[in-house]
Amino acid sequence: MRALFLDRELILKRDYPDPQARAGEAIVKVRMAGICGTDLELARGYMSYRGVLGHEFVGQVVESAQHAGRRVVGEINAGCGRCDACIAALERHCPNRTVLGILGRDGCFADYLRIPDRNLLVVPDAMSDEFAVFTEPVAAAYEIFAQVRIPRNATIAVLGDGRLGAIVAMALKAEQYTAIVGGHHREKLARLSALGIATALAAELDPGFDVVIDCTGASAGFARAIELVRPRGTIVLKSTAAAAADPAPRLNDIVVNEISVVGSRCGRFAPALDALASGKLDVTALISAVYPLEDALAAFAAAAEPSNFKVLFKLP
Amino acid sequence: MRALFLDRELILKRDYPDPQARAGEAIVKVRMAGICGTDLELARGYMSYRGVLGHEFVGQVVESAQHAGRRVVGEINAGCGRCDACIAALERHCPNRTVLGILGRDGCFADYLRIPDRNLLVVPDAMSDEFAVFTEPVAAAYEIFAQVRIPRNATIAVLGDGRLGAIVAMALKAEQYTAIVGGHHREKLARLSALGIATALAAELDPGFDVVIDCTGASAGFARAIELVRPRGTIVLKSTAAAAADPAPRLNDIVVNEISVVGSRCGRFAPALDALASGKLDVTALISAVYPLEDALAAFAAAAEPSNFKVLFKLP
Repeated sequence: MRALFLDRELILKRDYPDPQARAGEAIVKVRMAGICGTDLELARGYMSYRGVLGHEFVGQVVESAQHAGRRVVGEINAGCGRCDACIAALERHCPNRTVLGILGRDGCFADYLRIPDRNLLVVPDAMSDEFAVFTEPVAAAYEIFAQVRIPRNATIAVLGDGRLGAIVAMALKAEQYTAIVGGHHREKLARLSALGIATALAAELDPGFDVVIDCTGASAGFARAIELVRPRGTIVLKSTAAAAADPAPRLNDIVVNEISVVGSRCGRFAPALDALASGKLDVTALISAVYPLEDALAAFAAAAEPSNFKVLFKLP
Repeated sequence: MRALFLDRELILKRDYPDPQARAGEAIVKVRMAGICGTDLELARGYMSYRGVLGHEFVGQVVESAQHAGRRVVGEINAGCGRCDACIAALERHCPNRTVLGILGRDGCFADYLRIPDRNLLVVPDAMSDEFAVFTEPVAAAYEIFAQVRIPRNATIAVLGDGRLGAIVAMALKAEQYTAIVGGHHREKLARLSALGIATALAAELDPGFDVVIDCTGASAGFARAIELVRPRGTIVLKSTAAAAADPAPRLNDIVVNEISVVGSRCGRFAPALDALASGKLDVTALISAVYPLEDALAAFAAAAEPSNFKVLFKLP
């Protein structure tokens, strides 16, 4: 099969071995897949991952004891099933986990993928592939609500006008919060404004927010979040970045202002799929381009362009 | 009067002007005062403070509309009384606050100090000065319980075997938590062990703690806390340090492991005074030396010695 393989550099392999299902696992034919900031970071060397890239997908199950023939999305962490984290239904934090396209498990930028049956969620028939492929990034946004109790009248700033910032802002709007997105790219901010989201240049935001959500993907975002949050406020840190923090965050300010910082990554898929099914989030407005897998390198180049939001693969 | 004045370097002034009470303020004759890590940081240039140092004290009110003649301790932050923080009874976070011996207000390493009446708490007659002078650092420890709901069976590591780490460990023990103190100084750890507190070399602690409380006073403590806390665990950050973070904290780990970080400084005095009055904390075991104000520079040198816990001033 075809597979976009990362081994220091990206290579589109045409004769990659088809995945073989093990007990409790399914084989899924990929229909669509999305490129995320983490993929770009991995391609730059973050986590030294070697394997097939990709973790956002919607596909058709071709082999499974439970879901054969169904259209599915899939949670990306596969836990050991035996440790404290797995027993607490937190496979996402299993110390022995593999992660689709990120850690020890081939990903979804390929014709087929292998994934535990229990990770799969069936996509409602009425939902398009273009919607369903956003389940993973929407689950990353909804994880915020699972972790932090945000009062409805809180003042909220989202730092970062890229893919993740846009989806987080959409999720906040869908859940009837008022937020402002702070970014560096006037064209991206204008595009978000067109979606009814309040925006500003990050440098022009005034301090004093109850909650600041860092989606910049850059370590400098954390430093800016510390400046913008009010005393006793909360920073939600969603950025993963390969580079060390520069400028160094002012830890003193965290202590003196008694700020809470909550690290947050992807959450459960079910609330995200429900939100997408409700039509509360018009995520398809974020699609900048759709590529065939054959043009994988061009797609990655497009995803790295600041003028683009979401770049997708569509497989035949 | 005599006053230990900081102006790049420490000078014991003998003819410093006596403080003059303003409306709503009291004049207190200092009986005892304690040297804290923040004082050492301030003397090294942290916050560019210029003025009389010192914020831990017990004293006798000599002038006040409310408390004349009483023996008191005093909360160290004086808010404007009009902003959102002050109205929410969070004067500690008033953006226009002054802070005794730290920010815009002369401190307690002097014969007399000036402080708002509403900051004063009367010390129970049965409590010695040696106990009462610990109210501020004990309030810093008890602030943790006000901010973080810690399950009674949580595994807790306290990083730092100095003054603050010792008092935090005592407070945890007093409130029936089980904690282990990780430090670098075998003699300090031995002294804590003698107080019935579990200890270990910080480098030898195994990861996986539910809660890690950084009391190292060094930015490296935060990096070690990130290593030691379990996924979804909580780091309480109490260290203020003048130096930038080195090594740089691994922010990625905060995100991937969904760690919560809670900045924490001094809290309300009332719970601390209650805890001291109950006899649950034997803080006097932490007194390493008592100096007259005349020997202020020697006292500061002693407080900077890793072999010493608390160094106090006793004024005639």
